[in-house]
Amino acid sequence: MTSQELFENIKKKKSFLCVGLDTDINKIPRFLQETSDPLFAFNKKIIDATHEFTVAYKPNLAFYESMGVNGWNSLEKTVNYIKNNFPDIFIIADAKRGDIGNTSNMYAKAFFDTMDFDSVTVAPYMGEDSVKPFMTYLDKWVILLALTSNKGAEDFQYFTQNNEKLFEKVIKTSQKWGTEDNLMYVVGATKAEKLKEIRKIIPNHFLLVPGVGAQGGSLQEVAINGLNNKCGLLVNSSRGIIYASNDKDFAEKAGQAAQKVQIEMEELLKNKGLL
Amino acid sequence: MTSQELFENIKKKKSFLCVGLDTDINKIPRFLQETSDPLFAFNKKIIDATHEFTVAYKPNLAFYESMGVNGWNSLEKTVNYIKNNFPDIFIIADAKRGDIGNTSNMYAKAFFDTMDFDSVTVAPYMGEDSVKPFMTYLDKWVILLALTSNKGAEDFQYFTQNNEKLFEKVIKTSQKWGTEDNLMYVVGATKAEKLKEIRKIIPNHFLLVPGVGAQGGSLQEVAINGLNNKCGLLVNSSRGIIYASNDKDFAEKAGQAAQKVQIEMEELLKNKGLL
Repeated sequence: MTSQELFENIKKKKSFLCVGLDTDINKIPRFLQETSDPLFAFNKKIIDATHEFTVAYKPNLAFYESMGVNGWNSLEKTVNYIKNNFPDIFIIADAKRGDIGNTSNMYAKAFFDTMDFDSVTVAPYMGEDSVKPFMTYLDKWVILLALTSNKGAEDFQYFTQNNEKLFEKVIKTSQKWGTEDNLMYVVGATKAEKLKEIRKIIPNHFLLVPGVGAQGGSLQEVAINGLNNKCGLLVNSSRGIIYASNDKDFAEKAGQAAQKVQIEMEELLKNKGLL
Repeated sequence: MTSQELFENIKKKKSFLCVGLDTDINKIPRFLQETSDPLFAFNKKIIDATHEFTVAYKPNLAFYESMGVNGWNSLEKTVNYIKNNFPDIFIIADAKRGDIGNTSNMYAKAFFDTMDFDSVTVAPYMGEDSVKPFMTYLDKWVILLALTSNKGAEDFQYFTQNNEKLFEKVIKTSQKWGTEDNLMYVVGATKAEKLKEIRKIIPNHFLLVPGVGAQGGSLQEVAINGLNNKCGLLVNSSRGIIYASNDKDFAEKAGQAAQKVQIEMEELLKNKGLL
C-alpha cells in the first residue's frame, strides 16, 4: 500500500484509527475461552464490529507468542481474515524486531511473505543493516521506533550528542534508508508536545501513535501537533476499544468505542481541511 | 540456572561454546527437506552431534518465524528436546524482543512459561520497563544488546554524551535493573578491542559474544580481552558449525567443527587458570 492509498482510505473512512489487537486469553469474555480458537474467535468478532471505523489493525505479536503454536495459528488466521474480507485495511505486525542483516531478512520473510502484513514495527538499536531488509518488499513498510510512549523511553531515547537527542538522530539517520512510501515512525501519544518538533524534521512521513486511551495520551493534542496535509497519522487504541466490555455484548461495545473515536477523528480531519 | 551453575558446566565441558541454531530450510541437506519436520529433524541431529562440546544453544527466532506455524512448532520441539535430554545446557531465545511493560510481560511468558528457554536477548531502546518483566522469572536471564557485531552498530551505539557512548550508557544504566545472576550482555566478537573497556565497567557479568566465524571475529582476541575468573563468556558460532557440510555427513561434520572450537576453548581456559 502506498501513502497515497492510505490517505485515500483515511478520507473514505473519515478516520485515522488503528485498532490494536492485543488479544489476551485472560481478558476476553469467558464464553469465548472455551471455543477451539479463542483468540481468533474474539478477533473475528472485533474486526466485524470495528472495520467500518478503522483504517488499520495492529496485532501485538507478544500476545500471540505467549500462547505458543496455537497463538501463532490464531495470528495467521487473523491476518488472512482481514486481507480476505477488508483488503483496504493496513495491517501492522507490532513485533519490534531488528537483528543483523541475514536475520532481519528472515523476519521480513515471516511478516511479508509467509504472512501478509503490510508493515512491521522495528527497533533501531542495531542500525541500518537491521532495518533495510524489511524495505526490499514492494509496498511493505517499516515502522521504526523513534520516541515511545512508555516511561522507559526516558532512559536512552533522550541521550544527547551536540544538542541532538537519540530519537532525533534515529529519525534523521533513518530517513536516508527509506522513503515516505515505506517508512513510518512510532511516536507515543504521551509525548504529544514533542510531535511538533518531530514534524519539523519529518513533515511528510506517516507516524504511528500509540498511547491514546489506557496509557493516557490525548487524541486532540496528537492531532493538533501531528496532522499534516495528507493526515500523516495512524493513532492506535487497543485496550480502550477491544475490552470495552467483556460480556456477550463485547463486539457491539467495541464497535461503539471505535465509532466514538472515528467521530472525533472526522471532526479533527474537517478542522484540518482534509475532508 | 545461576551463573555459578553455568560456570560449573563450562568447567565440566571444558568449553564456553554456544551453538547458534539459525536453521534455514534452504541451507539444510536436501534429503531432510522432504521430511515432515525438516527444521526439527536437522536440529535434533545437530544437537546429538554437538552437545558434548557446547554449554549453550541459541535458536534464532527469525528462522523459525519465517516458516510460520510449522516453524514455531519446530522451535518448541527443539527446546523440549534439549531440556529433556541435556538439562544442563543453557538455552537462549535469540529474539531481540522488548516493548512496553504489559507487552514485555507477554514475551516473557512466551519464552519462559509457554516454552522453557533459560534466557532471551532483549533490545534496550525502550528502557527499563521493557526489560524488567523478563527478570521476574526465577533462574531466567535477560541478555541485553550492548555493542552488536554488525556494521549498523556504528549508527547509534557509539552516539556520545559527555564522553559516554550509548552502549556504555546502556550497560551502566541497566546494571541497576538486574544482577550478575539474571543479566548478561551481547558484545560482538568483531568489537573484541572494546571488550577490555567493557570489562572495566562489568568485570563479573557474563557476555554473549556472537560474530566468531562467518562474521569474522577472533576467538583468541575475545578470550584475551573478555575472560574473567568465572569464564564470563559464552561465544556463539552458528553457520561455521551447523553448515560445516550439507551432505549426509552434516551432523558428523558439525560435531567435528564444534569439537575443534571446544579444544581451542579448553586451551584458553587452561591458560587463564580456570581448568
